Amino acid sequence: MKAVCLISGGMDSSTLAYVAKDMGYDILALHTVYGQRTEEKELMCAKKIAKSLDALEFMEISLSHLTQFGGSSLTDYSMNVLDHTDEKGDEKRKNSQEKTQTGAGNEESFGSHTISGTISTTIPNTYVPFRNSNLLSIATSYAETRGAEAIFIGVQASDYAGYPDCRPEFVEAFQKVISLGTSDETNIRLMTPFVNLNKTEILKKGLKLGVPYEDTWSCYKSNHPACGRCDSCYYRLKAFEEIGVKDPIDYA
Amino acid sequence: MKAVCLISGGMDSSTLAYVAKDMGYDILALHTVYGQRTEEKELMCAKKIAKSLDALEFMEISLSHLTQFGGSSLTDYSMNVLDHTDEKGDEKRKNSQEKTQTGAGNEESFGSHTISGTISTTIPNTYVPFRNSNLLSIATSYAETRGAEAIFIGVQASDYAGYPDCRPEFVEAFQKVISLGTSDETNIRLMTPFVNLNKTEILKKGLKLGVPYEDTWSCYKSNHPACGRCDSCYYRLKAFEEIGVKDPIDYA
Repeated sequence: MKAVCLISGGMDSSTLAYVAKDMGYDILALHTVYGQRTEEKELMCAKKIAKSLDALEFMEISLSHLTQFGGSSLTDYSMNVLDHTDEKGDEKRKNSQEKTQTGAGNEESFGSHTISGTISTTIPNTYVPFRNSNLLSIATSYAETRGAEAIFIGVQASDYAGYPDCRPEFVEAFQKVISLGTSDETNIRLMTPFVNLNKTEILKKGLKLGVPYEDTWSCYKSNHPACGRCDSCYYRLKAFEEIGVKDPIDYA
Repeated sequence: MKAVCLISGGMDSSTLAYVAKDMGYDILALHTVYGQRTEEKELMCAKKIAKSLDALEFMEISLSHLTQFGGSSLTDYSMNVLDHTDEKGDEKRKNSQEKTQTGAGNEESFGSHTISGTISTTIPNTYVPFRNSNLLSIATSYAETRGAEAIFIGVQASDYAGYPDCRPEFVEAFQKVISLGTSDETNIRLMTPFVNLNKTEILKKGLKLGVPYEDTWSCYKSNHPACGRCDSCYYRLKAFEEIGVKDPIDYA
């Protein structure tokens, strides 16, 4: 029984892979790089987690086209990753819009056209447009070629508010796409055991399963030490604090 | 009014882009390379078509991860692309299975595990697993960052039999994924005007719109001249023959 596990190297996806293993699956680790600032560190962590789970394979995939399109501060280095406490909502929105209008500049110049974008002004500028659908499509291609029966993805409750492609309805709709878009002999189930858990509940589960959190990385901004201030650091630290355990990684 | 058009450089997608332009859309051309044998030729054709339509942008995207997974004769050069008339069904099936079991070998060696695959034994070995979902995910990311209102993809009737991700139900399910997975202000429609047409009907439409078919490429096997024998050449030639027009490209 094989499962493709999307392992970013963060605490959620690492815990998720431990849950999959605990359920009896052999792990096919799928790690994607897409030009994010902390790419190198995340890759290292994902590999350590996969090794610790005796994964069947470690597949590293580049989604650099998401960088080509631009529009997210995670991949567009001319945009700022804002601190969690940053209240300059207007600047956040302005950032999103401005960069969308120009793109990230990797595309070939084609005539003298000016292109204006209309991406949302309310979702966080760390949103990589339609990322989860890209991830799940790749995971499904991988699962189909390897005869895996499940795909584990760590979407979870606290992301709903900001990222449209983390909603449970999105996951359900994608399950239908998988069922219809793969060969009829294939039966791949999309597994999202964390969809209704918050980060603290996930961490509690992970500590019970012995996840080596020293080998996970969450910071959006820096490879070492973690900034401690971006959204991702904020929620990670909050979860450790709520459980009363010290986060084993270094913070600035 | 902008539309992302997936332009492979083949006759269907080129005709489709002309249809989109005819409907009043400005074209954002999206061309993907994924290690297929005729990559270079298709890129050249797609660029010519985009130029002839005064496209706003030409975006070339690599989906090389589909090559990493293996499992299709279009990207795995150790497998044969069979001639249309080839009746060795058993060999076709054997080809599919064997290569799936080993993968394409790009992945990092990870332990000493042996992985066996169970991909379909009845769909053609030119099938790239779940390719259309990967294409549509990318197209949607692109559309969202550019504020496009539509995505045109050339799925069509005669492909249903073989490729599961060309079915109309698949397209409908993906439309739902788009609606749920993009920001609420975004409204992107998936357009498949060819879904119920056959190749001859598409060609008739294209000739009326003045599509320069000398700048399109269909052959699965060769960059020049076209082999005239693979499935793709066979159906193209049949369409031209049925209309009684000479195909302007060279055949072996």
